[in-house]
Amino acid sequence: MSKRIAGPEIERLIQLLAKVPGLGPRSARRAALHLIKKKEQLLAPLALAMGEAVDKVRVCSTCGNVDTSDPCMVCTDPRRDETTIIVVEDVSDLWALERATALNTRYHVLGGTLSPLDGIRPEDLNIASLVSRVAEGSVVEIILAVNATVEGQTTAHYITDQLDGMGVKITRLAHGVPVGGELDYLDDGTLAAALRSRTAF
Amino acid sequence: MSKRIAGPEIERLIQLLAKVPGLGPRSARRAALHLIKKKEQLLAPLALAMGEAVDKVRVCSTCGNVDTSDPCMVCTDPRRDETTIIVVEDVSDLWALERATALNTRYHVLGGTLSPLDGIRPEDLNIASLVSRVAEGSVVEIILAVNATVEGQTTAHYITDQLDGMGVKITRLAHGVPVGGELDYLDDGTLAAALRSRTAF
Repeated sequence: MSKRIAGPEIERLIQLLAKVPGLGPRSARRAALHLIKKKEQLLAPLALAMGEAVDKVRVCSTCGNVDTSDPCMVCTDPRRDETTIIVVEDVSDLWALERATALNTRYHVLGGTLSPLDGIRPEDLNIASLVSRVAEGSVVEIILAVNATVEGQTTAHYITDQLDGMGVKITRLAHGVPVGGELDYLDDGTLAAALRSRTAF
Repeated sequence: MSKRIAGPEIERLIQLLAKVPGLGPRSARRAALHLIKKKEQLLAPLALAMGEAVDKVRVCSTCGNVDTSDPCMVCTDPRRDETTIIVVEDVSDLWALERATALNTRYHVLGGTLSPLDGIRPEDLNIASLVSRVAEGSVVEIILAVNATVEGQTTAHYITDQLDGMGVKITRLAHGVPVGGELDYLDDGTLAAALRSRTAF
């Protein structure tokens, strides 16, 4: 706001809300006003929940997931298969896979991808801890679920090199036509990969 | 999430964020993850700002605006003209007018519109306090900036009746073509109003 029409606390709330992904300057104002109007039902509980998250959320020292306990719920879940680890770039990928599938595997969050241009080297990612987990001996398969980008594939190759000779099976996600997708709109690379990896009908 | 993959504090944060206007269940998850990753830079300050808002924000007893002081910054601003009051339905309208114009007037926030179907009667709105402000004698003009809806216009007529005989000039916002708008896409009512209220070129 160009003119000051509200106290600094409200303006600060709007400024901070505008930094939340999904909200811009305009929707931050609308969100702030809605929160202020629902002070008891929404603003107070949200402030409390955020405060709790600040106090309790930590990064899992085993897999790199975020949770309120360390090791995280995924690592301590006794029903999960210890022999398979899905390697993902980011916690959001872990959440997406958990929503999509009924797999009961463990995970390993790299925290990014190798990118020499951005100065991200192997020691900046959770790769050494992945090698240690494999070295413990109970892991049979590593599923590389990194993004199908150049950086993702570079990282996948680097990890494969690091795990070479450790007797673990390394797989990656299939390339192909997205379910519900139209061939006409697909890029050539995906179409070619889908054709190469065709399966029996 | 169908399966529990994070502590209850994180799930609660996601649930509450999903109630913020502009965020849905999916974007709330993304927002929560972003906030958790930027714990020190964003989540902690936001939790603090929300806590402060919970403690300090109140409704102005004079005009119905929300602020951290009562009377609010608009009512206590000595540079604003005491003789003109813009009547709006909601605080968001006050903010919108302040952003758009260089008017230095006072405001009066009704807190809604008359709506017999929803059980909203005159005593549920800040109409009596508006009449009191006018009765104090220094107000010369009341600008009714209510929405151009049936409820808004009903409310405007009711307020006009209440202020009848108090010697105050009552005006309303002009109807017309929105700036940058195309005639072809305008509804008939707006076009007819714009033609009726045509001005010299």
